[in-house]
Amino acid sequence: MPEFFNVLPPEEARALLFQHLAADVAGETVPTEQALGRVTAGALHAPQALPDFRRSTMDGYAVRANDTYGASEGLPAFLYVVGEAPMGRPATIELRPGQAAVVHTGGMIPETADAVVPVEYTQVVGGQQQLPFEIEVVKAVAVGQNVLQVGEDVRQGEEILPAGHWLRPQDLGGLLALGVTVVTVARRPRVAILSTGDEVVPPGQTPGPGQVRDINSYTIAGQAAQAGGIPVLYGIIPDDFAALQEAAARALAENDMLAISAGSSVSVRDMTVQVIQGLGEPGVLLHGVATRPGKPTIVGVAGGKPVLGLPGNPVSAMIQFDMFGVPAIYRLQGLPEPPRQGIVWAKLSQNVASESGREDYVPVRLVETKDGLLAVPVFGKSNLIYTLVKADGLLKVPLNKGGLAAGEWAEVRLF
Amino acid sequence: MPEFFNVLPPEEARALLFQHLAADVAGETVPTEQALGRVTAGALHAPQALPDFRRSTMDGYAVRANDTYGASEGLPAFLYVVGEAPMGRPATIELRPGQAAVVHTGGMIPETADAVVPVEYTQVVGGQQQLPFEIEVVKAVAVGQNVLQVGEDVRQGEEILPAGHWLRPQDLGGLLALGVTVVTVARRPRVAILSTGDEVVPPGQTPGPGQVRDINSYTIAGQAAQAGGIPVLYGIIPDDFAALQEAAARALAENDMLAISAGSSVSVRDMTVQVIQGLGEPGVLLHGVATRPGKPTIVGVAGGKPVLGLPGNPVSAMIQFDMFGVPAIYRLQGLPEPPRQGIVWAKLSQNVASESGREDYVPVRLVETKDGLLAVPVFGKSNLIYTLVKADGLLKVPLNKGGLAAGEWAEVRLF
Repeated sequence: MPEFFNVLPPEEARALLFQHLAADVAGETVPTEQALGRVTAGALHAPQALPDFRRSTMDGYAVRANDTYGASEGLPAFLYVVGEAPMGRPATIELRPGQAAVVHTGGMIPETADAVVPVEYTQVVGGQQQLPFEIEVVKAVAVGQNVLQVGEDVRQGEEILPAGHWLRPQDLGGLLALGVTVVTVARRPRVAILSTGDEVVPPGQTPGPGQVRDINSYTIAGQAAQAGGIPVLYGIIPDDFAALQEAAARALAENDMLAISAGSSVSVRDMTVQVIQGLGEPGVLLHGVATRPGKPTIVGVAGGKPVLGLPGNPVSAMIQFDMFGVPAIYRLQGLPEPPRQGIVWAKLSQNVASESGREDYVPVRLVETKDGLLAVPVFGKSNLIYTLVKADGLLKVPLNKGGLAAGEWAEVRLF
Repeated sequence: MPEFFNVLPPEEARALLFQHLAADVAGETVPTEQALGRVTAGALHAPQALPDFRRSTMDGYAVRANDTYGASEGLPAFLYVVGEAPMGRPATIELRPGQAAVVHTGGMIPETADAVVPVEYTQVVGGQQQLPFEIEVVKAVAVGQNVLQVGEDVRQGEEILPAGHWLRPQDLGGLLALGVTVVTVARRPRVAILSTGDEVVPPGQTPGPGQVRDINSYTIAGQAAQAGGIPVLYGIIPDDFAALQEAAARALAENDMLAISAGSSVSVRDMTVQVIQGLGEPGVLLHGVATRPGKPTIVGVAGGKPVLGLPGNPVSAMIQFDMFGVPAIYRLQGLPEPPRQGIVWAKLSQNVASESGREDYVPVRLVETKDGLLAVPVFGKSNLIYTLVKADGLLKVPLNKGGLAAGEWAEVRLF
C-alpha cells in the first residue's frame, strides 16, 4: 500500500482532513427569525445602541438623585410628582429640583432625571395619587441607579457576533432587538450518501436469505442533518467498480461532501479506496484510524470536498461519521469547532479493557444514582446496531490508557 | 392575593404544572426516515429477529469448529475449501468434516458450519486458490466464534423502543433494519406566543422614542422549536384587557400551549394574571418562582393546556420559558423527562453571591484551560439580552446555597 495509508490517531487524522478542505461553502441571506441553528457567514456589528434611550429597570419614580441625598426612614425626602412617563412614548416631562415623575419598568425616563426610586421605597403623602401629588422617599438613590443607560447592552458599531457563530434563540433575539431582520449565513452543506454491498437492500424491501436492509444511509443522514447538513441519498450501488465510480463522481459533483458506506468485505473496501483515489486530488489521505470500533475508515478529499469511506458495520459507520463527517460539516459552515456537545462525566460500573495507542468508544447507558451518574457499558459485538439504540452515549477510553477501572470517572459523549 | 399565588422552588412549581396537564397530544404516523427528533407514541416490538440468518463477522473460512481443535502454528489443521458463500445470497454449501467455505464479513455462513476462522490465521497450501484448495489453520476456533447468531442483535417480539422515546439517528437505523418503515410519534405540540406591551413594536419597524422591538416572541419561538414544538406567533397585543383576553382565548383554542410575554410593568402583569385566570380551570397555579432572574412568572393551566405569563425582560423570559415551557413541550409529547441536556461542570473564575432559598442562574462564558473548563460570569443587569448572547450557558447556584466561591466546581447548563 502507498505510504499515505497510515493509521493515525483521530485528532491528527481530523487535522489532516481539515488541511485539505476548500474554504467554507458560500453564504446566503435568510430572515433572522428563520436562522436558528445556522452559522454566521461574517461578523455582525450593531447598527444602533441598545437600549437607545434611558430605561427604568423598576416601577417607581424618576428623580434627580441629588434630591434624595440622605433620605431615610427617619428623615424622608419629600418630592412633588408632576407627571407620568408613559410606556412606549417619549418622556417629555421636565423635572425641576424637588420634582419626580411616575415611571414603569422598561419605560423611558425624562431627560432631566438621572435615577429611579423604586415604588417600595416611597409613600404617597395623604394617600392621594392624582397629579400633582407629594411622596416621601425613604431611601437615597445614586446617579444612574435603576436606570439602563444608552448602549449599556450594546454600543453602536460594536461587534455583536463573530463570523462562524452558531445561532441560538438568544442570538436571534439580540439581532432582532437591533432591527437586524436578515442575516447572511453559511449555506447548509449538501452531504451525498451512497451505500454499496451486494447484500444490501432498501429498508422497504424484504431481504432474501443472506441479505440485509440498508441502515447506514439513514443513520448517516440523521447525523448529517443534526450537524446542519442537507443529506442527499443516492441509494444502493452494486459492488461494481464502474458503477460505484460513476455514482461517486456524480454525487460528489452535485454536493459538498460524499460519504460512502463501503460494504463490509475486504474486496469492496479495496474497491472503495480505488474509487476515492480516482475522484480528484489529493484523493485518499489515510486508510485506518486508531480507534475501536472503526479502524478501516477511508478519509479523503477531492477538489477540496471531504470524501469518507465508512465501514459497512453500522456501529462503526456511525462512530466514524461522528468522528470525521460531523466535524467536516461544521467546518464547511465556517464553524471553527463543533458546538460544545453534551459531554458528561460518569462513574464506570465495571472495568473496560482497551489497548494503549488506540481511542476506544464503548456504548454506555447512564443511570442516575445518589453518588452521581453511573456509566454501564452495553456489551455486544461491535456490529450490533441495537447496542447503540440501548445506549445513551459513548464512553471514551483515551488514546494512551490501557483501559479504565470500575469506579473511575470518565467522559461520556451523549447521543 | 389568593392563597395559590405562592412563590415555589422551580422543582415543585414544575411538578404542580405537570399534575394539571392533560394526557399527551395525539399520535401521528410518519415515515421512519423522517422521524428524527420525534417521540414514539407507543412501545415498538421487533417484527423479526436481527440478524435473521447467521452472519460472519470476519473475512475468512466457515468451518466446523471441531475440525480446528488443537490447531496451532506448530501443528496446523488442514481443511479443504470446497466453495464460497457469496454475499447477499443463501449459503447452500454443505460442509462435510474436514471441509471449509470462503466467507466474507457480513455474509451468511453455511448451515453445516458453526464457526469462522479469520483469514489471517490460515495459509493456502501451495498458494493455489482455485476451488477446491487446501488451507492450513494455525489457530483453533470455538463453536460460534466470529459468527453473529440469529437474534443476537434483537430477538423477534422483543421491545425495541419504549413509548416516549426521543428518536436519534441510531434508532431510525434500528427500526429500518427490521423493516419498520413507518412509526407512530407524538404530534408536535403547537405553542402559541403572544407579546404584550404598549412600548413593543415588531422587529422590522423602527422604534420611536420610548419604544423597543419585540424579541421575546422570537427567542421563545426558537426555544419551542428546539424542544420539538411548532411555534405559532400571534404578534403584539395592545395593553388592553379585552384585546388580550380575546387574543389569548383564541390562541389557546387553536394550539396546545400558550406563552404570553407579559410586558414589564406591574399593571400589565396584573392584567395578565386576570386574563390567564379567565381562560379556564384551574387557571393560575402560581405567580412567582424562587429563582433569579425571573421571579414574576405566572404558571397556569386551562383545560389541560399549559399557559405561561413570562416577564417582559428578555433574559428572564428565556430562562423562565426554559424552566417551564420547554419541559411542558417535552411532557406534551409523552417524554417523561427532557432529553438529558448538555450539562458540563466547570470551575468558577470568581465568587458568585446568591441567597439561600432561591435558585440563581448566572450567564457564563466557558474557557478551556489546562486545569479544565473555567466558567466566567457575564455580568450585566438581568434585562440585557446580550448577556445571554455573550454566554455559553447558565451557571446554576443551587436552591440552598448562599452563593459559590471562586475555584468551586459548578453545574453549567449549555445553551
